[in-house]
Amino acid sequence: MITKKELKQINSLATKKARKTEQQFLVEGKKSVEEFIAGGFQPKKLFSTENTKLKGAVLVTENEMQKMSCLKNASPYLGVFEIPQANVLPNKGRILILDKVSDPGNLGTILRICDWFGIKNIIGSLDTVDCYNPKVVQASMASLARVQCQYTDLNEYLSKTPLSIFGTYLVGKSIYETAFPEDAILVMGSEANGISTELEALIGQKVTIPKKSTNGPESLNVAIATALVLGEITR
Amino acid sequence: MITKKELKQINSLATKKARKTEQQFLVEGKKSVEEFIAGGFQPKKLFSTENTKLKGAVLVTENEMQKMSCLKNASPYLGVFEIPQANVLPNKGRILILDKVSDPGNLGTILRICDWFGIKNIIGSLDTVDCYNPKVVQASMASLARVQCQYTDLNEYLSKTPLSIFGTYLVGKSIYETAFPEDAILVMGSEANGISTELEALIGQKVTIPKKSTNGPESLNVAIATALVLGEITR
Repeated sequence: MITKKELKQINSLATKKARKTEQQFLVEGKKSVEEFIAGGFQPKKLFSTENTKLKGAVLVTENEMQKMSCLKNASPYLGVFEIPQANVLPNKGRILILDKVSDPGNLGTILRICDWFGIKNIIGSLDTVDCYNPKVVQASMASLARVQCQYTDLNEYLSKTPLSIFGTYLVGKSIYETAFPEDAILVMGSEANGISTELEALIGQKVTIPKKSTNGPESLNVAIATALVLGEITR
Repeated sequence: MITKKELKQINSLATKKARKTEQQFLVEGKKSVEEFIAGGFQPKKLFSTENTKLKGAVLVTENEMQKMSCLKNASPYLGVFEIPQANVLPNKGRILILDKVSDPGNLGTILRICDWFGIKNIIGSLDTVDCYNPKVVQASMASLARVQCQYTDLNEYLSKTPLSIFGTYLVGKSIYETAFPEDAILVMGSEANGISTELEALIGQKVTIPKKSTNGPESLNVAIATALVLGEITR
């Protein structure tokens, strides 16, 4: 069973402010909890409604679990994990930069895409949605356990990096005709506004996903666009 | 202003049953309403909270519009459109088949991807989510006005088609090494279960999106996978 104080603390982790203060986040679902542990994340508390082999899991009732959960239908497993300490921002390999991506579902999907294509690092603008947001964690299906996501002032970071910088725009060189080096940065902008104007001067090569229809949609969803460009970069 | 009877009829169109009986569906948002009209869809009723140049639009209050709307925050424009009559199922060109895709957001995104890549026809299994579901229409961002989506017994359809049939699986020939003919069928299964076992014998070529990580996710979201395969087919 859990105490009122514990429940209150766990519920508070739905907010960015509490996650920042406590340096903790929630993971729900058996597979996800196991994958975060396997990924080296430190569990602070584990809860389960079933007898489980998870070391140190506290048995709770389904009612208690639902009260802790951010999901409409709670999973039988919930873990409170430590947010890992910030690392030095990477300057080699393939790095995905997200500029003002605000939708949690999109970031979760993008984490999963990076995980699929072996991209180990995402750097978000300071106003990109927090990767420890429960909706992002859920949508990432534990890919957040394997892909490092950090946040910084993009203007500063991109000004200093020695890597080639590619930015995805509605107009640019076709991704199918672009040679992407082994080490490179790919910048994706928000769906509504694209890459910020202030970053434009830092983009070395504007690339685009060719549209095959004349009267089709104006743009693609940012997760879809990310998948198409990363698929091409890593093929 | 609108009558109680009208409001009741409009609200009923959130359900598949009423859409089937009435052969009508809802479109919200100025751009979407305009694009469905431009796409040749017949508006039965148009409503607006602003003075508009849309021919025949009835002026309503914001309160009335919110009562009609399926959105949390109603748009100032709403149209009730006729569901077009079923066409003969296509047997040429590139056709996307969806087997048991149940998430409205995924179907909406897939409609937009097809629209981007110039794919004109989607055929869903009878248990695939209804394309006139308000959430699908919304997520498609009016691509449903340009991409035809129909439903049928896939076993029957695939048994009779003269086209080559490609199916996306977790194991198969790499999409990057597969030659896709100009006229071909691509089958995508549901994320949870993949392509139904009963359809497997009808798949001419199993294809796969190569995973570039060793311990990455088990699968990709069905909309992401569709984008990657269609991008490769149409490049």
